[in-house]
Amino acid sequence: MTYTLVLLRHGESEWNAKNLFTGWVDVPLSEAGEKEAVAGGELLKSEGVLPDVVHTSLLRRAIKTANLALDAADRHWIPVRRDWRLNERHYGALQGLDKAATRDKYGDEQFMLWRRSFDTPPPEIELGSEFSQDQDPRYADLGEDVPRTECLKDVIDRFLPYWEEGIKPDLAAGKTVLVAAHGNSLRALVKYLDGISDEDIAAVNIPTGQPLVYELDEDFQPVTKGGRYLDEVAAKAAAEAVANQGKK
Amino acid sequence: MTYTLVLLRHGESEWNAKNLFTGWVDVPLSEAGEKEAVAGGELLKSEGVLPDVVHTSLLRRAIKTANLALDAADRHWIPVRRDWRLNERHYGALQGLDKAATRDKYGDEQFMLWRRSFDTPPPEIELGSEFSQDQDPRYADLGEDVPRTECLKDVIDRFLPYWEEGIKPDLAAGKTVLVAAHGNSLRALVKYLDGISDEDIAAVNIPTGQPLVYELDEDFQPVTKGGRYLDEVAAKAAAEAVANQGKK
Repeated sequence: MTYTLVLLRHGESEWNAKNLFTGWVDVPLSEAGEKEAVAGGELLKSEGVLPDVVHTSLLRRAIKTANLALDAADRHWIPVRRDWRLNERHYGALQGLDKAATRDKYGDEQFMLWRRSFDTPPPEIELGSEFSQDQDPRYADLGEDVPRTECLKDVIDRFLPYWEEGIKPDLAAGKTVLVAAHGNSLRALVKYLDGISDEDIAAVNIPTGQPLVYELDEDFQPVTKGGRYLDEVAAKAAAEAVANQGKK
Repeated sequence: MTYTLVLLRHGESEWNAKNLFTGWVDVPLSEAGEKEAVAGGELLKSEGVLPDVVHTSLLRRAIKTANLALDAADRHWIPVRRDWRLNERHYGALQGLDKAATRDKYGDEQFMLWRRSFDTPPPEIELGSEFSQDQDPRYADLGEDVPRTECLKDVIDRFLPYWEEGIKPDLAAGKTVLVAAHGNSLRALVKYLDGISDEDIAAVNIPTGQPLVYELDEDFQPVTKGGRYLDEVAAKAAAEAVANQGKK
């Protein structure tokens, strides 16, 4: 008896295409990103990996990815759960900035620290600024706890309660669980599941639109570390593309 | 203190466009239907009627309508509940048949009886036939209770428990509730709310893609019978178009 967990990182967004830091800014998928989502769903269907429930963030690029993929897999009718704890990492004052220009301005070292450091967040975003979420109604329940910046450690800290209370109960009930989310919320989950060190997680990139399947044992430990991509070849190529982001 | 309930009938489906009886057959929206859903969502946004939670059926034409409308209203992130009790009326053995051809074959009287009689269902659909849902995984929990045909009375009987247990608690919590559903599941709800007689409900047609807002008092009774359409002129024209379905 194993549990089946499927991770799906959203496809290209309009800001991915423009090479801007996005974080909690709620940008739509690009047309290419929509196609990735549909292709991911077709793969779920052809491989017979059929989710019984889906968990998404509160951001439309993950929500739309889930909607399109599930429609393609003929599983559009399954229950849906959404939670801010699955959101992308909040990129603080970098939200809305061009990645290449930021690298030029601050240098490679600072740029990689902000992108990949485990515990150094970018500077906080100003309250009330264009790309801040402090007035966003979807986070009203958080009050003053709406993040103003996050490092990966922060993402893990706010994600894990949802893993325990939101996702594990569905797995324990025998459901195939789809988590449609973001590069860093999924890295947080993969780090936890695979026991990856604070250093080694920096080199882990999750490709977009590629269903990643974990079979978990009765203690919710991966039967195979790293899980398996339904399309290993495409996933490898896509992960390399992510690693090259911000390069010119 | 009133409660706010918003009803939205899905836009044109591919089978509406072809003039076929659909019922529980899970056909997609047509391109025109997708545009109706987006326009409905834009109306919600411009009128400031912002749902806090959405309830849909298990059929993709209602699910897609909800997704598109909520995305257009910038409320794509709200909680979602789905239930088979919001499905369209099961049209029995008529599912998949051409409406005009059925009228020609059986005559006006029988045709209108099947379409608008309160308590005469069409003949049952054959188990295992192309347009039956007895093997559909989304209804597996219903076992042998998966409907094989329904009249409007049957729809009311299976809808009302969901009104009580699924929808009313959200209203009671002060949430603006969107119900994205179908011609007959929404007629069932409107009949109940407005206290329409078994005879008079035959003449009630709900237009597609037109948000219909009910303010309910503390006893969940409509403050204004019939509610109000956010776009009264368009809603009237659309309701007349529905009434003319099946005519040549």
